[in-house]
Amino acid sequence: MRLSRYFLPTLKETPAEAQIVSHRLMLRAGLIRQHAAGIYTWLPLGFAVMKRIEQIVREEQNRAGAQEVLMPTIQSADLWRESGRYEAYGKEMLRIKDRHERDLLYGPTNEEVITDVFRSCIRSYKDLPLNLYHIQWKFRDEVRPRFGVMRGREFLMKDAYSFDLDTAAARHSYNQMFVAYLRTFARLGLKAIPLRADTGPIGGDMSHEFIVLAETGESEVHCHRALLEKPIPEGVDYDTDLQPIVDDWTGLYAAADEMHDTAKESELGDALVTARGIEVGHIFHFGTKYSAPMGATVTGPDGEAVTVAMGSYGIGVSRLVGAIIEASHDDTGIIWPESVAPYHVGLLNLKTGDAATDAACASLYETLGPDRVLYDDREERAGAKFADMDLIGLPWQVIVGPKGVAKGVVELKNRATGAREEVSTESALARLAE
Amino acid sequence: MRLSRYFLPTLKETPAEAQIVSHRLMLRAGLIRQHAAGIYTWLPLGFAVMKRIEQIVREEQNRAGAQEVLMPTIQSADLWRESGRYEAYGKEMLRIKDRHERDLLYGPTNEEVITDVFRSCIRSYKDLPLNLYHIQWKFRDEVRPRFGVMRGREFLMKDAYSFDLDTAAARHSYNQMFVAYLRTFARLGLKAIPLRADTGPIGGDMSHEFIVLAETGESEVHCHRALLEKPIPEGVDYDTDLQPIVDDWTGLYAAADEMHDTAKESELGDALVTARGIEVGHIFHFGTKYSAPMGATVTGPDGEAVTVAMGSYGIGVSRLVGAIIEASHDDTGIIWPESVAPYHVGLLNLKTGDAATDAACASLYETLGPDRVLYDDREERAGAKFADMDLIGLPWQVIVGPKGVAKGVVELKNRATGAREEVSTESALARLAE
Repeated sequence: MRLSRYFLPTLKETPAEAQIVSHRLMLRAGLIRQHAAGIYTWLPLGFAVMKRIEQIVREEQNRAGAQEVLMPTIQSADLWRESGRYEAYGKEMLRIKDRHERDLLYGPTNEEVITDVFRSCIRSYKDLPLNLYHIQWKFRDEVRPRFGVMRGREFLMKDAYSFDLDTAAARHSYNQMFVAYLRTFARLGLKAIPLRADTGPIGGDMSHEFIVLAETGESEVHCHRALLEKPIPEGVDYDTDLQPIVDDWTGLYAAADEMHDTAKESELGDALVTARGIEVGHIFHFGTKYSAPMGATVTGPDGEAVTVAMGSYGIGVSRLVGAIIEASHDDTGIIWPESVAPYHVGLLNLKTGDAATDAACASLYETLGPDRVLYDDREERAGAKFADMDLIGLPWQVIVGPKGVAKGVVELKNRATGAREEVSTESALARLAE
Repeated sequence: MRLSRYFLPTLKETPAEAQIVSHRLMLRAGLIRQHAAGIYTWLPLGFAVMKRIEQIVREEQNRAGAQEVLMPTIQSADLWRESGRYEAYGKEMLRIKDRHERDLLYGPTNEEVITDVFRSCIRSYKDLPLNLYHIQWKFRDEVRPRFGVMRGREFLMKDAYSFDLDTAAARHSYNQMFVAYLRTFARLGLKAIPLRADTGPIGGDMSHEFIVLAETGESEVHCHRALLEKPIPEGVDYDTDLQPIVDDWTGLYAAADEMHDTAKESELGDALVTARGIEVGHIFHFGTKYSAPMGATVTGPDGEAVTVAMGSYGIGVSRLVGAIIEASHDDTGIIWPESVAPYHVGLLNLKTGDAATDAACASLYETLGPDRVLYDDREERAGAKFADMDLIGLPWQVIVGPKGVAKGVVELKNRATGAREEVSTESALARLAE
């Protein structure tokens, strides 16, 4: 993409309303614009990052055996009356009346809708296990939306819902999502720690939050140092028993601030790490909480009706855009992990209008591929181009000026390390094709 | 994908509420389930088709130079007061109050939001032309939603908005979308006819509806026969003058029922075609209708403030799923065009449990690729498998039974033509790899 044609409204001033670094950088780098409190328009660069995150989430859900559907954003209140949550949910639910005065709502979550789909479609235990997910916009009417996309009102989530015949089978579904989440966050370039979370009246041990580490994170995490270095499971066969992987990850101490245990921590000594983090995922087994009141049953192997055991598994997709920035930035701007970068390379023409420099840039642009390169062909000062490119945080920069072109060299800069080197054009092409 | 694990709740009975064939087939083939009046959950097969349509729409928008953004579903009423449409829009607008009693609405369209983005980001004529699009859910509170996804309340649309310095430049933006639409509908396997549409108080000739031909269509189209056979523009350079292409397409007689001209039609004689169709797109130049009241101006070449000229360009993405079925089905079910088919091949195992047949199917499945094949490995009667596969309409069927396996042959069936032939396994693989 040529920057002269790209809609990238960067800001020189730091917007006053932005209290945290990801919010500031998302506004300054032209990723989003606020439409109303907690409601944003995603501009091309921000949209491209969100789509890449969404695709990684999708691939890992599919790999784990979940199937993608799409539930609507507007839901019927009647289903929520069946589950008993309509009155209980409170003011965060955006309640709506349609032209016929029927009660609707903008879905803050989807347990009721998916349970209704299940009970209308599935009759037999032979159709289990089943895990259905979607990636859809939700709305929670926060009293005081803030921190940009980290605590917005309209936000994009992946949520999956599993249906099983009994708790043992539900544990396998849970473990599949546990492992898929480890892989998902690692692919996004994040260190994510699973923390035991409250299971409330459901009880048991099947509730985990996934917290990504970021110095600017909202909450404190206490954990064993070994968790930070634990290798991510590769080549997983999701049909096999995953309990050993889950045990391996949950066997080490890890706790949120409100649940941490100073006695255990003093035993850990030097192995204890206290860090800050951001919640980006939550997996939860809730048994028959919705299937029982809503009558989601199947015929079991012996012909009897069995109320299915359910779990839900969320990932904050739009929130992850902010979380990744919180985890990966410096004083000059964003540093995108390669897997989510909107473009792989930023190509800087330091003398637009100079025939030799233009020709060298045009050749690099075509060879590297317009889909992978954002080419700054604007008539702007070199300083402004450097600042903008650092701000938007593409992994690599290729800096092309007339002196270098005369010598057949360009400068190659790694955004994360800041390392720069002068290399031949051919060598730059070879390196960036990797 | 193995059908034994796939969530495909087909229906044997034709649902009574479905009045048109696409609605019936979408319910029967397990593409959608109704959640509330005019609001649907998309099940895996329907979701996959919608995603393929969306991707073709996206590719052709990008090719024409439009840039993808994403506006929120929930909009502030204040912007609609600025444009003067808040009161005027009527009961189709879903109006909402948030917890602080602020007026919100679920966007039925996005002129106000995009004009607001534009005026907050763009200052100079040098940043024009600009065409921004998004693919997002909208809500129109129809009095009587019906015909499934063809006239739902929550529906997915692509809408693009162009911004130009003057009408001549706006005409080029309009022509880019005109040509992109011809290409988009052709890639979807549809015959689409552009019809001159009413421009109301704006005047001029820049408003066209795109109607796909389907015998079961809602409206009547009168046009010159040559339009049906006109070749679709290939390898278009969208930066060149596209007026000759547009003139070529608009020079032939074509009119909706309410605008048709019997005098002109009698001149056409045998060249006149009267057919039925479904509106799937609409492009419209509306000049300064929103930019003037909302103050969307740029500094022009002479330093003066210029109110930008705008156009909007819609495609009904979820509606297209229904429209494609209306245009392409037979008595036994859907016939997906290859470009939007959720899977390329349906593999039918006629004797699940027979070792040789299972092995032959497993080998075909792996070789053709689980992403391209829906493998019916269920323990079901052959008749049920034939019926389900015809119903869901994948372009090719590979039918594998024990007798054929013994001879090294399978049956290959083309869903559209119904042609079946017995071919060697190798030959089937070669044909389907094409």
